[in-house]
Amino acid sequence: MANNELSKDLDPIESFTMADVVELKLREYIKRKSFKPGDSLPKELELAEALGVSRNVLREALSRLRMLGMVETRKRRGMVLARPDILGTMERVLDPLIIDKDTLQDIFELRLVLEMGLAELLFSRKTEQDIKDLEAIAKKENGADKTFRIKNEIAFHGKLYEITGNDTLKRFQIMLLPIFGYVVTLEDQPTRGKVTHQDLVEILKTGTKEDFRIGMFEHLKPHFDRLTKPSGV
Amino acid sequence: MANNELSKDLDPIESFTMADVVELKLREYIKRKSFKPGDSLPKELELAEALGVSRNVLREALSRLRMLGMVETRKRRGMVLARPDILGTMERVLDPLIIDKDTLQDIFELRLVLEMGLAELLFSRKTEQDIKDLEAIAKKENGADKTFRIKNEIAFHGKLYEITGNDTLKRFQIMLLPIFGYVVTLEDQPTRGKVTHQDLVEILKTGTKEDFRIGMFEHLKPHFDRLTKPSGV
Repeated sequence: MANNELSKDLDPIESFTMADVVELKLREYIKRKSFKPGDSLPKELELAEALGVSRNVLREALSRLRMLGMVETRKRRGMVLARPDILGTMERVLDPLIIDKDTLQDIFELRLVLEMGLAELLFSRKTEQDIKDLEAIAKKENGADKTFRIKNEIAFHGKLYEITGNDTLKRFQIMLLPIFGYVVTLEDQPTRGKVTHQDLVEILKTGTKEDFRIGMFEHLKPHFDRLTKPSGV
Repeated sequence: MANNELSKDLDPIESFTMADVVELKLREYIKRKSFKPGDSLPKELELAEALGVSRNVLREALSRLRMLGMVETRKRRGMVLARPDILGTMERVLDPLIIDKDTLQDIFELRLVLEMGLAELLFSRKTEQDIKDLEAIAKKENGADKTFRIKNEIAFHGKLYEITGNDTLKRFQIMLLPIFGYVVTLEDQPTRGKVTHQDLVEILKTGTKEDFRIGMFEHLKPHFDRLTKPSGV
């Protein structure tokens, strides 16, 4: 484990390609110059010369910045700085099959932390229409089969994130769903707490933030119970 | 705004390069084949032929996957699938100067949500040494100047994340710090709530999860007050 830590912090030098180095230099350059979205970058040839690298290597590095959404090509203007999509690249790698077990567990916990922390935003931003939408979702749940219940679970919690009015948070939780689902399917425990979705809606209507947090904890309790098991940590 | 939404969902076709398409195809291929870390990928020449693209374009796309940490080159084995660092690429683009105002606000709120949701993990994982460390940080604060107070603020909240034992969560909050700091400096409000760090430590020692959440809310209240202002949404 300690060795693993060390190899995380220090990459072997040989594993750096020229493109890695040029990409890093370009990102440093963009920061240092305080470039803003819309600003033009110097021409490829000038950049390659200044860095003392071939145009192929420079293009490879620029291609990475394009993937990150940091630069884009505009007609007649060449490369300009763009607004990166901060979740876009993470989205590309969030695959339960290639993420290690510890990180999967971390992400599972991260989502529990988020759900427990939503109360302030929910109570300050919920509308009557939101409550109606949640009620409609919660009602459909009765007597549904397992596949439907999972879809419904996603719809209900997704709607909660939507009520926060925070697009980044909402997209983030959608990205985390497959991971959460994957970890849950590894479990054989029942995943339903005493407090149901309908109870949570009722609390949102007539209760307080504190009531909601206590209710959400009870709702998520099967997951929290699992965390305290030594094997889960 | 509506137009902006649409252009977020539908990229103009012309803005896709061959490398974008090949990168997407490769990621789909890796998922479909259920490749796992350590598995070898087919040779460059074979991939280029199967996709009907030049080796330069293929290399550009592979270079992006290497940046994402999805593949790595091993001596005598060629390209193998690797474990991507899910936060690594986001780290590259989290620059307050290039992120748009709405996203900065979203990230600011995301951090408040996280802090409010930490109580369960803190109470189930805190040790006596953790409490001592927090006390030491909180004590240093008295009478310190502004620069020191900010450092101390970071140290205190950073230690809370550390106590969760969740490395992903801890790294995530470290990444968000510059954004949080940037948004706070745009404010002229005082940023200190009635509940101090020392109060929070006391609650961690002798209080309940619910007490802690109420305390944390009071601690963060100047930030929450700001959110409810219509201009802040």
